[in-house]
Formats: sequence, structure tokens, C-alpha cells
Amino acid sequence: MFTHKKELQFHAKPERPDPVYAKKLQEILGGQFGEISVAMQYLFQGWNTRGNEKYKDLIMDTGAEELGHVEMIATMIARLLDKAPVKDQEEAAKDPVIGAIMGDMNPQHAIVNGLGAAPKDSNGNAWNADYIVSSGNLIADLRANVNAESQGRLQVARLYEMTDDRGVREMLSFLLARDTMHQNQWIAALRELEEKEGVVTPSTVPAEWEATEFSHQLINFSEGEDSAHLDWMGKEAPDGKKFEYASKPAAHAEKPKLDPAPPYMHNTPPFNEK
Amino acid sequence: MFTHKKELQFHAKPERPDPVYAKKLQEILGGQFGEISVAMQYLFQGWNTRGNEKYKDLIMDTGAEELGHVEMIATMIARLLDKAPVKDQEEAAKDPVIGAIMGDMNPQHAIVNGLGAAPKDSNGNAWNADYIVSSGNLIADLRANVNAESQGRLQVARLYEMTDDRGVREMLSFLLARDTMHQNQWIAALRELEEKEGVVTPSTVPAEWEATEFSHQLINFSEGEDSAHLDWMGKEAPDGKKFEYASKPAAHAEKPKLDPAPPYMHNTPPFNEK
Amino acid sequence: MFTHKKELQFHAKPERPDPVYAKKLQEILGGQFGEISVAMQYLFQGWNTRGNEKYKDLIMDTGAEELGHVEMIATMIARLLDKAPVKDQEEAAKDPVIGAIMGDMNPQHAIVNGLGAAPKDSNGNAWNADYIVSSGNLIADLRANVNAESQGRLQVARLYEMTDDRGVREMLSFLLARDTMHQNQWIAALRELEEKEGVVTPSTVPAEWEATEFSHQLINFSEGEDSAHLDWMGKEAPDGKKFEYASKPAAHAEKPKLDPAPPYMHNTPPFNEK
Amino acid sequence: MFTHKKELQFHAKPERPDPVYAKKLQEILGGQFGEISVAMQYLFQGWNTRGNEKYKDLIMDTGAEELGHVEMIATMIARLLDKAPVKDQEEAAKDPVIGAIMGDMNPQHAIVNGLGAAPKDSNGNAWNADYIVSSGNLIADLRANVNAESQGRLQVARLYEMTDDRGVREMLSFLLARDTMHQNQWIAALRELEEKEGVVTPSTVPAEWEATEFSHQLINFSEGEDSAHLDWMGKEAPDGKKFEYASKPAAHAEKPKLDPAPPYMHNTPPFNEK
Amino acid sequence: MFTHKKELQFHAKPERPDPVYAKKLQEILGGQFGEISVAMQYLFQGWNTRGNEKYKDLIMDTGAEELGHVEMIATMIARLLDKAPVKDQEEAAKDPVIGAIMGDMNPQHAIVNGLGAAPKDSNGNAWNADYIVSSGNLIADLRANVNAESQGRLQVARLYEMTDDRGVREMLSFLLARDTMHQNQWIAALRELEEKEGVVTPSTVPAEWEATEFSHQLINFSEGEDSAHLDWMGKEAPDGKKFEYASKPAAHAEKPKLDPAPPYMHNTPPFNEK
Amino acid sequence: MFTHKKELQFHAKPERPDPVYAKKLQEILGGQFGEISVAMQYLFQGWNTRGNEKYKDLIMDTGAEELGHVEMIATMIARLLDKAPVKDQEEAAKDPVIGAIMGDMNPQHAIVNGLGAAPKDSNGNAWNADYIVSSGNLIADLRANVNAESQGRLQVARLYEMTDDRGVREMLSFLLARDTMHQNQWIAALRELEEKEGVVTPSTVPAEWEATEFSHQLINFSEGEDSAHLDWMGKEAPDGKKFEYASKPAAHAEKPKLDPAPPYMHNTPPFNEK
Repeated sequence: MFTHKKELQFHAKPERPDPVYAKKLQEILGGQFGEISVAMQYLFQGWNTRGNEKYKDLIMDTGAEELGHVEMIATMIARLLDKAPVKDQEEAAKDPVIGAIMGDMNPQHAIVNGLGAAPKDSNGNAWNADYIVSSGNLIADLRANVNAESQGRLQVARLYEMTDDRGVREMLSFLLARDTMHQNQWIAALRELEEKEGVVTPSTVPAEWEATEFSHQLINFSEGEDSAHLDWMGKEAPDGKKFEYASKPAAHAEKPKLDPAPPYMHNTPPFNEK
Repeated sequence: MFTHKKELQFHAKPERPDPVYAKKLQEILGGQFGEISVAMQYLFQGWNTRGNEKYKDLIMDTGAEELGHVEMIATMIARLLDKAPVKDQEEAAKDPVIGAIMGDMNPQHAIVNGLGAAPKDSNGNAWNADYIVSSGNLIADLRANVNAESQGRLQVARLYEMTDDRGVREMLSFLLARDTMHQNQWIAALRELEEKEGVVTPSTVPAEWEATEFSHQLINFSEGEDSAHLDWMGKEAPDGKKFEYASKPAAHAEKPKLDPAPPYMHNTPPFNEK
Repeated sequence: MFTHKKELQFHAKPERPDPVYAKKLQEILGGQFGEISVAMQYLFQGWNTRGNEKYKDLIMDTGAEELGHVEMIATMIARLLDKAPVKDQEEAAKDPVIGAIMGDMNPQHAIVNGLGAAPKDSNGNAWNADYIVSSGNLIADLRANVNAESQGRLQVARLYEMTDDRGVREMLSFLLARDTMHQNQWIAALRELEEKEGVVTPSTVPAEWEATEFSHQLINFSEGEDSAHLDWMGKEAPDGKKFEYASKPAAHAEKPKLDPAPPYMHNTPPFNEK
Repeated sequence: MFTHKKELQFHAKPERPDPVYAKKLQEILGGQFGEISVAMQYLFQGWNTRGNEKYKDLIMDTGAEELGHVEMIATMIARLLDKAPVKDQEEAAKDPVIGAIMGDMNPQHAIVNGLGAAPKDSNGNAWNADYIVSSGNLIADLRANVNAESQGRLQVARLYEMTDDRGVREMLSFLLARDTMHQNQWIAALRELEEKEGVVTPSTVPAEWEATEFSHQLINFSEGEDSAHLDWMGKEAPDGKKFEYASKPAAHAEKPKLDPAPPYMHNTPPFNEK
Repeated sequence: MFTHKKELQFHAKPERPDPVYAKKLQEILGGQFGEISVAMQYLFQGWNTRGNEKYKDLIMDTGAEELGHVEMIATMIARLLDKAPVKDQEEAAKDPVIGAIMGDMNPQHAIVNGLGAAPKDSNGNAWNADYIVSSGNLIADLRANVNAESQGRLQVARLYEMTDDRGVREMLSFLLARDTMHQNQWIAALRELEEKEGVVTPSTVPAEWEATEFSHQLINFSEGEDSAHLDWMGKEAPDGKKFEYASKPAAHAEKPKLDPAPPYMHNTPPFNEK
Repeated sequence: MFTHKKELQFHAKPERPDPVYAKKLQEILGGQFGEISVAMQYLFQGWNTRGNEKYKDLIMDTGAEELGHVEMIATMIARLLDKAPVKDQEEAAKDPVIGAIMGDMNPQHAIVNGLGAAPKDSNGNAWNADYIVSSGNLIADLRANVNAESQGRLQVARLYEMTDDRGVREMLSFLLARDTMHQNQWIAALRELEEKEGVVTPSTVPAEWEATEFSHQLINFSEGEDSAHLDWMGKEAPDGKKFEYASKPAAHAEKPKLDPAPPYMHNTPPFNEK
């Protein structure tokens, strides 16, 4: 159950409207690694956790926090859109500043959302649940979380470069900090789990299920051997075994030949064969 | 530039057709973490790498290999669909075995694909490029890769449980092994990079951009304090700083109040205010 | 800002697992009118409200509640999936009960989500933000909300018919009640607003913008005149004007003829003309 | 069965080309509430109506009309794109007027559609059938229709503000009028049905299915009590019962605890518990 | 402008309900090559035709007809769903016939659409406008139309195999016939255009734009030379030039090396280089 | 199995960066008819071919080549993005050249991809597998291939018009040539197959399945008779039969009337009938 507190977790007030930047900021609201993604990812992971209550709690804590980040960015975008001009393009183009503002803002911010934020990315693609990961395996999912916070913090840093507005930058400085924390916490949790379970996930696969002769071999599928010279090549792998290097890929099976389709499929009948 | 060798990298021959399992196997072909995803993810990462040629080569090697895995699974699915029955449901239902086979196969395998594989997941959703990650930042992307190989190997293990067919299991044993290798290699590469760059990505964000007072604080957004008792809480974080714990979330900003929309937006005029 | 309370708003415990029903129940979790849709719709409407604070508060209250409904249904689905069998289809088919259970469950519940809920609908389509409405106009948005709660309650009623599990039905009885409340509240709010603004939205369009001769005319585009006999036809329309009936559609403009494309478009050059 | 008349229902001729406005106008052609959406929504509702022939006829009439609106807007867009310049950006940018025109037009209008309209919205997202509603319940569906015509008319009004072209405005004046009519007709139909069925849909849910103690309660999930002061709070609800107010949300169930996953799921084994 | 005639173009009455077949039949209603696709494809091609009025008329004729096919199939699906059982799965499974019917029907047919058709395919994916083609070039588009009618007729033939219901087969016999006609007409039109324009589209590309040394060369990118033995290899190509065969692919450019990213991108700094 | 050669098949080096053109070029990388589409389409067709080994080999050859075209265009885009400016919009707008460059580039090229290519189209829509065709019927699929190469070459020609960069044009001249070859080869293959099988696909449909009285009739669904005057109307159709013309569409079935829904569907009960 969730309750809402009207105060924002952190400031979300730009110095001045900037509808073009509002469009860009949508990326960290409704993009692949935006705040909706992490909120939904953590909540679904939490709800699906079976046992491991401390981790479930940590995941739910973070999920609830991210909902508040969605709110901050949505508020910031609404303010960046304050009184955004919508008049026709040709006239505006005579004044390059106005023209650029109008032409490059997301047209749906005006036509569809009435100067409000939308759950979409910086190109106007609607957020969708294919962005998130909830597998039921904690190590796998913590790796998804480390990834999400890494991509997310990278995007925030790039957006920081794209504005001089001190209000926007203040909010981004907070998001940078929280992404630092979240990278740290997921890595810490992961180290704890990997120590118990091993680094290769899932750890519960019996050895006899695996064609282990291929489990540590780097196969060189490109011409040239650059990858053979990686510092760790030929040394101990993270799981304690040793990396091998195969300079040519081998084909372990024949060329496949499929049986003809049954007539009721109405595929083209075979012909032209020798 | 890519060239094709007709022999398969590994065996892809089931003992007998099984159109229902063919539907399930689509998950690791065209699902979020299927072979199309890793192939495309690695290739785009490779093409976008600027410098770091050894890593670029490693990434391209692996991408080219994954294309061959797509081929193996597509071949396996076509064979699992060999002569799949398509006759009407009601009659088939009288024989529970046949009925179950027909009712539960993916109807598009017959109607659309003529008993062939499709670039879709186990629910028939088309593969889409939102599944992949290519950010230009190597640490961030290697984390995406560790995640992809973890989710992928987990799904292969689950699919292994769902069949007794020795031919299918043989192919899966190879995929388990390659996912072991790929987890190992991305983790090894990541450790090397993190040692130079630090664990928090991107490492190039100036300290003064970040509201560092929030960079190591676990904020408890749930009632109850389970997460406070994690073993690593209060200790050194992966980036060398110390984790802190805040048992109550603080609101650092006011309740937001947006300016009214301009009349040309045709939003509802404000009313009902005190 | 949101905080999480670990107790559920209402019971979400089935009498026994039922993985096939779990698949169906996904519709009201992640479908077009599922709980994710209403949660996100209300939250975005709230964040984008400019003025009208009482309504903003009502909308945010309801949005926060719906997050808790997502949680309840996700929990119910996880329990319906408890120990769901995953073994191979052909063998299971020999026991029709088991066969039907296995064949008809959502394969991703096992392969992808480890017996957990997913933000998807009953056919496995990922939730996407195109399901929601947030226009900045309060009357328009309240109508979207009345629609969402009507479709939602209808789906809950149909799902109620599809199970005899008392635990599931108990949860659905709560959702039916809350949808009753939410239909009532949005209708009450709408009546208040329509009284001030009029029923045609947006009310701020100047009369001279509108080709008012077409504003109250039912045009009969089908052969036959059934629709002419509707009880309210020819009487006062909701906006106080009078409905008219045109038994034949008129074409008020000529057949359009487009200019040829410029050569740099490489369209097919016109030919074959008289 | 449908037949086509070559004359347009109404004028669709701009004073002059404007490829940037053509991009914006796509919203009411192929966006969430564009003409394709209402055409397809009404046609599917009509085809799925079981009984209630007068309403079926009204719905089909309106669906057929909307197909003609798609045609008008597609024609208008093709004309707004007449001879749209496509030359390279940098040179054009030297003339700000031309530069703005070229830079901001939808690139697919030239590259993909040869200066023609596309079934996409103003951000280039393809129309999809998730935009429409056809539930088989007439009250629910009429509410969807009132919503669609409200969102649609709002978007037309905003697009009217964004141009000074008299030809474009003339077409929009017709669309404003038809949306006025369609709002009126769906509201009239809805009032007739609600009078017979009651306002809460579906009306056929037996009282004993519903946890009626929650059917009229506004639960305050936000801090602060603004929503308690709504004029209609505590008074008669639209369904004739009385609204209640609960200033604190209650949790009616325990904290959920899921059973561990079976080993064949390969979830992370529980650990780290007290 | 379109008008609707209530009578169907052809019979759409099954002998008896069959909700499982209803699910499969959705493929030719709302799938990639279903009737919605051809209707929308032809209408958009017609609206975007600039000149060539006879072809425009032919295209619009066919588009209008396809709208009537959507109607026929939607009606058939509604009837196949008549009184479809929805009760719970486990009990039904005891009667294999009923169990198979219930388990395999599309759950949204009951939960979402109230036993009506939906604009979706046989796996429940919503129709989307990415399925259609409207390029402004008539030869290119007629080829898209030949393709669509070929895929469509193939799917109808497969669906014919999947049922014994005489009513369903009667409707499919009509669709087979119309697809025969439409294949014939688009091929006839194409031959007429190719005779004037040549077979390579667009015909308006100046020779000097093209690296003609590569315009007729089959490059063998696979090991083995099967494709060299095609009957037409080495002979005259359709455009009158001669096919050549290159048994090894040549690389005409160097290995690409990208410049490092600028620091403001926060990509990983290059390292690990020799 | 695929191997990678580091040299590019052809040059992919622009004279100078042009981030706006990079956005447009995405269309032929990740759009509906971009290189990812043809690569994936040909590979899946090849993997699903049952018999007809020479054609399978031809299809696989071409598929492997197209992977190399994806690589060339991805490389070109990365170079067009070299050092793309990202600073804030308002300041840049003062210099119209810079302003136009920044405003019109794809924001995700900077924020998400770190100045790299993405598997998306020119409007930023992610590539998805609904773009491809693999039916198991060779004639049907070769028609899909002719269509894809026709649309693709048309788009390349249009993009050629949109730039003066000699490096970009050089790469496009190669793609024009390869699309010429691929149109030629698929047409040649198609002619060979059609000669054996006939032009109407699938050729295996028994005559008695088809309502042949409708197999050659052009039905005039529009007012006016332009299409009657097509040169080939009334003459021999491609399949050897004769085209007929019906100047009015006939309705061969009655107005459909659906049975009422069962009560457990909770549709609106019928009312308002005479």
C-alpha cells in the first residue's frame, strides 16, 4: 500500500521555461532507463520475491523512492513548458530564437498533454513494460539493477551538459547522487550474494547439464586476433576456472536440412533440385 | 562484413517433433533476452565503440557467435514443428494428447510461418530493438551484457527443466556453457575497467556536480526496518565511501504548485478554489 | 513523494494455485484498463494539473490507492502460480487436468518471471503508456476516468464469473466496490464541472471558430433509417440546442486532385491519363 | 459493406504548403484520439453489438462518417506537403525560414511516404489498435466515445491556435462542429441508458458479489485533506447512495509472504534470513 | 466519403460456435496481412496518389471492398464466440472437449471484448500501422500489394485446412477468390507500368548516381556454391543487363576506426591500448 | 554460423559530420525497409526453407551481405555524429546554423547512444520484427523481397537527394547498385517459379475450394467508372482467365444480426427495441 506526501523529495524548479529541454528531459522520465522503468522494475521484483525478506525490503524501499523521482521530473517538465508558445511555424522562424523553440519542442506536449509531462521518452515513444526485468532470481535481477542505474546516471550526466539552467542542474545533481547510492547498494548486495552462490548464474544448474568443454573458451569469430591480447585472457576466470582461446570457430554439427513441409501447409513444393 | 558457413556451430536436432515446446523455445530466440537481443546488442556496441580496440574486437566476436545461436535455435524450432497437425480443435480434443498439442501450439507457427521459426517470444510478441543497450560507455554496457547473459542462462535452465527430449537438451547444454563463458568474460572485462575507473559510472562526473550528501544514504521508504539489518549496511560501500541509513524519508522541497495554463491551451479554467 | 506500507490494502490469497487463472488475471493488472493504467493515468493527471487543487488532491489520492491495487493483484498472481508445474507437454497431456493447466498457463510466467506477475495483459502484451490519458483539460480527463473505471469494473465482473475460488472472489469483491466508488466520484466531479462549463468540451472555443450548421446534425451514413427513431432524436441536445437529422450525407467539397510530386521525390511519373 | 464517393465531405485545401504543420496535423489523423481511432472504435463497437439495433445503427453511421474524416485530413496533409523542400540541412539553415521548415518536418513524410500522409501521430508513432475500446457493454463503450470526442475536440482546438492558414482553419471548424455533435449524441444516448440501468456499470453485478462497505468511501491516500472539502463530498452520490470520507487509509490484510519457489525454477535460494 | 450498406458482401455464418477457431481467424482480420492491413494500405495509397487517376480509382475501389471484408470476418468471429463458456479451468479440464475449448480461446475475447472480434492477430497482438506501405511510388506500392495478397491468400488457405465447418469454409472460399482477383489485378497493373518504366524501381535514378559495377553481381557470402547453379545465373537479368557471379565477397574499404568521443559524452575514456 | 571480417564491404566515410543527416539516415538502418529488415527477413526465410537448396543458398547469401550493410550504415552514422554539439538550445539558436543542427538532431543519439547509431528509424521508433515476412511459401516470400528492395532503393534515392556530402553519396551509390541487383535477382527467381507454379499463390489450392465466380471480377466500389477504362480491363488476366467488370457492388448476404450475449458476459441488456 502506498501513501502520497505532497512535498517533493527534492527541488524541481527551473530558472526559466525551456520547452526544447523539456522534450530532452523526457528521456529520464519515460525512456528505457528513465525513472518509470526503475520504479516499476523494483516494485515488480519486490512483489515477486519469495523469501529473502531483507532484500525484498531494500528493493521495495528503492522502488517507492523512484516513484517520487518520477514526480519530481514530471513537475520539472511541466514548469519547463510554462506558457510554451504554439503559434505557427513560418512566422516564428523569422525570429530564430522563437523559431527554434517552437519547432523543436515535442508537439504532443502542446497538442496532447496541455503543457504537461507524458510517460514517454525524448523521441515521443510511449513507455512500455518491455523495459523492465523481474526474473525471480535475485543475482540476475540485481545485475539488471546495476545496469539500469549505470545507464540512468550516464544519461543524467549527459543531460547536465546540455543545460545551463541552475534549477535544472540542481535537480540533476540530486539524481546523480541517488544513482551513485543505488549503484553502490546493488553492487554491495550482489557481492554478498555472489560470495555465497558463485558468479555464474543460476548457480543451481547441475554440472552434467552443461557442455563444460565450451564453458571457458573465447572463440575468435572475427578475422584478426586483437581479443587474444586482453590482459585477462588465458588467466583465471571469475568463476575460478581458466580462460581458453580458440583462434578459429569450429562447426560441431552438419549443415541442417529440413524435411519438406506437409501439403496442408501450402508451402511452395520443392523443385529445382539436382 | 559477415560470411556464412552452412554447418551449424552445434547440434540442433530434437528426438521428435513437439510443437508446444517449439512455442516455448521462441523465448530464447526472440524474447527480451533471447539470442537476437544479444547478437544485436553486441554488434551495435561494437560498431559504436570509439577506441578500446581490444574490447571492440571481443564484443564483435561475441556478437558474430550469437548470430550462429539464432540460427541453431531457429533450426531446432523448425524441426520441432515438423508435420505439426493443424486440423480442427473440437475433434482433436477427443484425443487429449493431440488436442493439447494442437491447442497450445502458437497458431502463427502454422498460419503465418509455414512451420518455421519467427523472431518472436514465447507469447508471440515480435522482437523489438527496445530490448538492447548500446550507450557508448563501456562499463555501463558491460553491465548490460552481464545482465543479458544472466537472464539468458536462467531462461535456458528453466527450458531444460521443461523437456525430456535428449536432442533439445543437448543443444541447451551447449547454450548453458556459452552463457557461462560470456558471463565470465564480461565480468573479467568489467573488473579490469572498474579497477581503472572506479565502480560508479560514469567516472567522469565532477564531484561538484553531485549533491554528495545523498550519495551514500539508504532511505527507508517502507514502514519497518528490515533493510537496515543488511550485513553491509553502515559499512564501506563499493566506491570506498561509507553507507548511511536514514530511517525516515525527508522532503527537501515544497509542495509544487503549477502556474495556470495559458488560455490558448484550452485547459479547464481553474475554479472551485477557496 | 510516496511511502510504502507493507500490509496489503485488502486480502489477496487464493484458496489454491491456478496458473491458468493467473494468466487471465493479468488483464486487470497490466491490460489496457488494468490497475497500472489507472494508477499511471491518475498520477500523470495530478502532476499536470494547473490550479484546481481540490481536484488535484482527489486525483492523486486515487492514483496512490491504485498503486496498492497493483500490489494486491501482483501478490495474488504470484500465489496462483505457486509451484506451477512446468514439465513437458506430451506427458502431461495424458492427464487432462494437468495437461490443461500446463498448456494454457502463460509460458513467460515460468520462463521469464520465475512464477511471478508481470506488467502484461492476459495475452502477454507488455503494458504501454499509450493506454493512458492526461490532457490538461479536467472535463476531458474526468471522462477518460469514468471510461477507465467502467471498463475496469466490467472486466472484474467477467473475471469473477470465471472462477469459484473464494479467495480470488473476495479480492474481486473489493475491486468491484472500489470501482463503484471511483465511477461515482468521477461522475460527481464531472457533473459539478459541466454545470459551470457546459457539456461540450473544451468550452473555451469561440463560436465563430465552429461551422455551427453541422454542430447538431445526425448524418445517416448507413442505408436504412433506424437511428432516426432514437427517442431523443429531434429533441433537445445535452448542450441545449436541438438535434437535427439528415437522411443522406452531403459532400460539401469537390473530388480532391493532388499536384504531381516533384521529380526529386522519385515517385512514379504520371502516365496512362487520357 | 462500404462504398466510396470521390467528393470529400468537406473542404481540405490549405492556402499554402506548410510541411511543419503537416507533421502536427498527423496527431488528429493517426494519434491516440485521431480520426482512425474513432472510425475503428465505432466500427468494431457496431460489429460487436448484440441487439439494440438503433444504437448499432447510430454507431455504424458515425463510424462510416469518421472514415471520411480520415480522408479529409490525409488530403490536407498531402497538400501541406506539396513540393516540400528536402535539401541538406546545413545550407538551409542559413535561411532561417527554410531551415526551420526543413529541419522540423517529419523526415518520413519525404523519405518513406513521398509527400503523403501516414497513419501515424505527430511524433511519428504508428497508429495501433490499443487505442480503441470495444467491450460489448454499451454504457461502458458510450463513455469511451464521450471521452474520445472530448479529447479529439480539445486537440482540434489546440491545432486551430497553431495556424493562421484560412484553408486549414476552415477544415478544423468543420471538425469542431462534428465533435460537438458527437459529444452531444453520445451523452444523450448515455443519459437514456443510465436512466434504465443506473450509473454504475455493469449494472448486472449482484449486490452480494461486492464488498459494499467500500463502495462509497473516498480514502485519503495523501497527506492533507483538500479532497475532503469538495462540494459534493458527504452528499448523495450519483448512484443514490451517500459518499463517505476516510481520512486515513486502512490496511485490511497482512503483509504478504510468498512461499519459496520450487527448485526447478532456479530462483536464488533464500539466504540471509534471521 | 464512405457510406455503409447493412447487408454483408458475402455470407459469414458458421455452422456452430468454435471459440478456439475464432482466435485463429483473428489472424486474417488484424494480423500483419489481415484485412485491416490491406484496407488501410490501399486507402492510404489512394489518398497519396498524385496523378494517375485510373490507378487511384482502382486502388480506392479495392480499399473500400476490403473494409467490407473486415466486417465479414468480424461478424464471423462474433458468431464463432456465441455463448462461449468462460467457467473455471480446472473443472472444465475434466471434460477434455470443454477444457480444450476454454483453455485455448483468446481470454480477451471474453474479458475485454464481450464475445466480439478485436483488431488483433491470432496471438492477441494489436494491429499497428507499421504493417502497411504507402510510398508515393506506384511500382513500389503495387509490389507491396502483390505481396500482401499473396501472404493473405496463403493464410486463408491454411485456415481453410484447419476447420470442417461448412459456413466458415464458404466465407473462406469467397476470400480465396477475391485474393485471386487482387493478385491478378495488381500483377496486370504492374506489368503495364514496368513496360513503360523498366523493372528496377525507381526508374528515375540517374546512371551516374549508381556504382554500376555492383549492379548485377551475385556475391557468394556463404561457403559452397549452390547459388551459382541457379538456372538464370550468368544469363540476362530482368533489366536486360547480364548477371555476374562473384564466388568470394570482397572488402572494398578499410577496417573502420572511429574518433574518440568528446569528453562531454561521458563515454569510457580509451585505455588498454598498445 | 557467421564470421566477421573487420574491413567494411564498402566505404562509409562522410566528408564532414552532419548530425541532422545522421537522424535521417537511420531510416535505411532501422526503418521498416532498412537494412536490419532485409537482413533478418532473408535469414529467417533461409532458415525456414524446406528443400529448394539453391534458393535457400541464394537467400542466405543475400542475408549475410545485408548484415554487412547494417555495419556500413552504422559506421557512417557514428561518423556523421562525430563531436556533435549538445549544449543548450536557446543560446545555440542565436547562431542559426548551430541552432538548426542541435535542435533537429535525434536527442537519443546524444543522451542514449553516446554519438552512436541505434536500431531505430528516422523518427526514433525502435526496429521491430513485425517488419519482416517469412511464410514458408517461396513465391509469396520472393514477392515480399521484391517489395522490400523496391521500397529500400526508393528511400536510398530520396536520401541521395537530401545531401551534397560526397562521402555519403558514395556509400549510397553502392547501396543503389546492390538494390538494383537484388531487385533483379528476386524477379528472376520469381519468374522461374511462376512459370512452374502459375502466378496465383498458393498454387496448391484445389479449384473446388474457391468461389471462382468472384476470382476475376473487378468490383467498382467507388462512384464513377475510371477504373473500368484501364487498358487491361476486360482482357486476359495474368493467370490466363479473363478480367470482368462489375459496375455496382452486390451484397450476397443479409444484414447480420447477432444473438444476445449470455448474462455472464455483463454486456448491456438489450432494450429500446420496438
